[in-house]
This record gives sequence, C-alpha cells and structure tokens, in this order.
Amino acid sequence: MEPIRRIPQPDDLLATQKAIAPLIQRTPVLTCKYIDNRVGGQVYFKCENFQKVGAFKMRGAASAALRVPEEIRSRGLATHSSGNHAQAVARAARFFGIPAYIVMPENAPRIKVEATRDYGATIRFCQPNQASREEELEKVLASTGAHFIHPYNHYDVIAGQATAAMELLEECPFLDLVMAPVGGGGLLSGTALATHYFRKDAQIIGAEPKRVDDAARSLRSGKIEVNERTDTIADGLRTTLGELTLEILRKYVSEILTAEETGIVNTMRLIWERMKIIVEPSCAVPLAAVLAYPAPFRGKKTGIILTGGNVDLETLPFSHLV
Amino acid sequence: MEPIRRIPQPDDLLATQKAIAPLIQRTPVLTCKYIDNRVGGQVYFKCENFQKVGAFKMRGAASAALRVPEEIRSRGLATHSSGNHAQAVARAARFFGIPAYIVMPENAPRIKVEATRDYGATIRFCQPNQASREEELEKVLASTGAHFIHPYNHYDVIAGQATAAMELLEECPFLDLVMAPVGGGGLLSGTALATHYFRKDAQIIGAEPKRVDDAARSLRSGKIEVNERTDTIADGLRTTLGELTLEILRKYVSEILTAEETGIVNTMRLIWERMKIIVEPSCAVPLAAVLAYPAPFRGKKTGIILTGGNVDLETLPFSHLV
Repeated sequence: MEPIRRIPQPDDLLATQKAIAPLIQRTPVLTCKYIDNRVGGQVYFKCENFQKVGAFKMRGAASAALRVPEEIRSRGLATHSSGNHAQAVARAARFFGIPAYIVMPENAPRIKVEATRDYGATIRFCQPNQASREEELEKVLASTGAHFIHPYNHYDVIAGQATAAMELLEECPFLDLVMAPVGGGGLLSGTALATHYFRKDAQIIGAEPKRVDDAARSLRSGKIEVNERTDTIADGLRTTLGELTLEILRKYVSEILTAEETGIVNTMRLIWERMKIIVEPSCAVPLAAVLAYPAPFRGKKTGIILTGGNVDLETLPFSHLV
Repeated sequence: MEPIRRIPQPDDLLATQKAIAPLIQRTPVLTCKYIDNRVGGQVYFKCENFQKVGAFKMRGAASAALRVPEEIRSRGLATHSSGNHAQAVARAARFFGIPAYIVMPENAPRIKVEATRDYGATIRFCQPNQASREEELEKVLASTGAHFIHPYNHYDVIAGQATAAMELLEECPFLDLVMAPVGGGGLLSGTALATHYFRKDAQIIGAEPKRVDDAARSLRSGKIEVNERTDTIADGLRTTLGELTLEILRKYVSEILTAEETGIVNTMRLIWERMKIIVEPSCAVPLAAVLAYPAPFRGKKTGIILTGGNVDLETLPFSHLV
C-alpha cells in the first residue's frame, strides 16, 4: 500500500479498513440505560478498550506499518511512547516478523514496559522529557534504519484511527453527534474524517481535560497551543496537537468541550460500575463533558469512542472519592 | 404462567426464555486469545455481568415473579438476600408495579442496600445469621402476604437461571464443556438442565472455592453438606445446596472442581486486565479451576458463565498481591 500524502480521502479510509482487518478486532458498541437516563438522550459507546493491545492505537499502528514499503520494512518499526502506541507498534512489528524499537521514558509504568517487551520489542530508555525522547529516537533510527511511526501526526495513522468511527457508524448510522477525546488529535482527526465522509449530517465534537485544554485553545487561535501543566489523570491526553491533526480538526470539528478532573474520575467510576467494563481515565472525558452540560445532547443520539482499557489496577483513583 | 412443580422440562425452559425476555438483556459471549493460549483450548465467556442488575439473578427472579398467580401478585414479592438476588427481586417487583420486601443483614454492603432501595424495595434489616434472616422473613410474609422467592431452591428460579446457558448454547452450539460456579446451586442446576436438554453431548462441570467445597462433598455423599468456614472471597458462593438443586446436580453434573483463594483473585485480575470487563470474584472460580488443572480442557471448547459484576471498587483485592 502507498503511504497517504494528503488529508485521507474516503477511498483511503475504506482501503485502510479492509487492509488492517487481520491485525485488529471489530469491537462492540454498548449502551447503558442508566447513562441514557442521566443524559436524557441515547449514547452509543464504541468499545476500543476491547481492541487488540487494549486501545484504538492498534488501528493506526497497523495502518502505518502496512504502508511501510516492503523492501525496507524488514529494518523494523520505531517510535517513542510510554503508553498504548508503544504496544501497538510492537504488536504490528511482531505481526510482520520484523524488529520494533521503542523509546520509553525511564519512569514509564513497569506494566507498560513489560507489555511492550512481551510483544518482542527492544526497549530503549530515555530521560522523561521530550528532548531526550527525540534524541534517543534519532539514535535508534540512525543505527537501525527502522521506520518511525509517529503516534498521531501522520496521515497513515490518522486513517487507521478513523476506522473506529467507521465501524461505529456502520452499526449506528443514525447518530446525531460523534465524540472522541483529543490528546495529539490522531483519533479525533480520524473520527472527524470518517464522520464527515460517511455521516455528513452528524456533528463532530472533541473533549479534553480542562487542565490540558490546548486543543480547544488551538482551535480558537488557529495555531498549536501548548499546556502550562500536564497533571491530568487522563494520561493519554497530555500531548499537544500536530500540524496535520490541527488542520483536520479546524476543518471538521465543530467544538471541543472540556471536563474537570473530578468529573473525569466520577465518570470513569460510573462507566466501571454501571457498564461493568474497564476503561482508562481518557475514555471518560467525553461523557464527563456531556454529563456536566447535557443540554445539547438531550433527545439526541450520541456516539462516543472509548479509547482504551489499560489501567494499573493497583493504583486506582476511586478510593480518594466518596 | 403456572409454577413449575417438578424438575423443569425442555418445554418449561423454552417457555421461560420467551416469557422473561422483556425483563432481561441478552448478554454477549466474549473470548480472549490470551486466555485461550493459557488454557490450550477455546473458552467462551457468557457475560452475565452485563445482565440487568449486574448478575444472572435477574433471570431467576423474573421467571419466579411471572409465575406468581396474578390475583395474589399485587401483595408483593419478598426474599432474604444480601446480594444480587435482592436487587433482582426488587427490580422484578418494580416491573410489575408491586411491592418488594427484602430482608438484609444489617452488615450488608451499603452499596447493595442502596441499589436495592433504588429499585423501590422496602428493606427490613436482620441480624447477620440464618435464623434471624428466616425469622424476619416469616414476619414479613405474615404481615404482607407477599410471595417468597427463594434465591435458588425453587424450580421457577432454576428455570430462569437455565436461560443463560440456553443463550450461550444458541450462540456456541459446538461446546464440549459447560461450566458454572456453584453456591446454592440455582445457576448450576439450570445450566445442567439446559445443557443436558439442548446439547446432550457436552459435559457439565461446576466449580467452587476450596474453602467452601460443600457442593463437591454433597455430590459425593448424596446429601447436603455444610461448610465449616465461609471466609472465601467469592462471596456469592458461600451458601450450601438445597434439596431441589442437589437432586438436579446429582443427575446431570459430572464433576465439581475447586479453586484456591489465591487462584481466584489472580484469575479475577486476569479477567479484568485481559478482557477489560468487571467481574465479581465468584465469576473467576471456574476459570481459576481450569487454569490450575488445564489438562481436561486442552483442545476443547469450554463455555463458562460469568455470573455478575457487582463489586465495591473501593475495596478491591488486587493491591494485596504482587
């Protein structure tokens, strides 16, 4: 497959969906009457917490790995990530029987390091800052010739992430709104493209923690804004947008809502207790925003992408709340 | 509908399945490649943790409530339970717009008391022992004329619990073995009948904690054995069999396996982490037994009923283990 060199088009998304099928799982859409009653509308949850490696990231990594030219693919895949993208790239590499080199901060959770290693990846540790990450990655790329798969600022990755919304819209073609959380913007870009192409009338809404509201500010200012603080519990959403994701979001996303930390934890707990599924804090952000300001969602059908379910069961936030 | 007065027959089960449909949810069957690899066979999990009120108990309560003669149903339903059966009876009563009287031990978890009250039930507290439970229940029945729905030693309830295995076998007609945990034996009796009637060649296996292995001993001795201790983490499985359930288990269950406490907690954690679903400790007992002695399950297709997902997120057992 050819790499995608401009904003992914409908044909790119359809080709991606077909190509990545052997590497991913079609995930279920769940509903919950209690949550519907709270919202006053219907909410459809696309359960990417059940995805391979426990997160939607498998889609983007698969899409990008498939588009590395075969003759150089054997050199391997590389990325920097302390989270789900690391496991996704490692698993994609294993699928092709090629090496994976993952740069991880030395303070990355042990459980994520081990999971990534379990997929056969070579881990290179770096200092826990962006400069050290990039420096270490450069070294890896120089010495191995591996192909770098950026976690979000990459059209092939965006096309992969779009397939979650495509499946959601296939199963729920009646949605009025489609929501996804936004960190670097890979998932939200893909969701926006899929919704724009395949369900033109639906509104596309992003959500992020109030403490890291860079995406909302970026959409207002038109340029990539950064975060003063990154101490949100929604650890998957601490990054800022990239040039490619910003451009897509500006075109197709109508609004980015924000959620308070307490709302995020309470909503995560609500999903665990009422839906009996395990979701990461990042997953809870869109519903937390909806529950805080439900008016626009009353009487509507809203689709929400639950991004992943990789949490450390030993350090859950619930006991700190009443 | 007429109450069932002898071991439920195929027609009884089919009629029950049809009748309870408006009160229950058809739950999904999930699989997990990691678990399949660990077992060396294929395992199909029937997710009753997604059932209404969070447990299979809704099936039996619905079946029994439907069979209370209409002319006396308005007096209400009553039971004693500190757990899922309480919520199930309360919700069944609400469905019919009739009162529910639930006798609960005064030390029942606050969260379960509140959930039962949320369904509109009247709670009567008793001392946390069997004699006080029964005495308080007798008072309730005498003063209200309400209809007692026994949590398991009741053919109508057994027929309801059977519908979980019926759905599982409809979706997975190829199963070699069907497993369910055993406490009072309502679920396992129903599972045994459904499997015997609708998948004659499959083996029916029960599982219980080693610490409360009364069912295994009862099957050997042919009479109801009791437990010296009841301090298992699998709080849904502490009760002993009833006359009706014992008779059915003796006829149709080939074996009852036991699981150690550590194995139960580790397996519960495995299900949470790998399947991303929330299950009660009781759910983990069959898989814990399989993982401890996988030989008979290698190369086989095993169905396991996951019983429920009502756990207190503030007191999880995971932090005590490595």
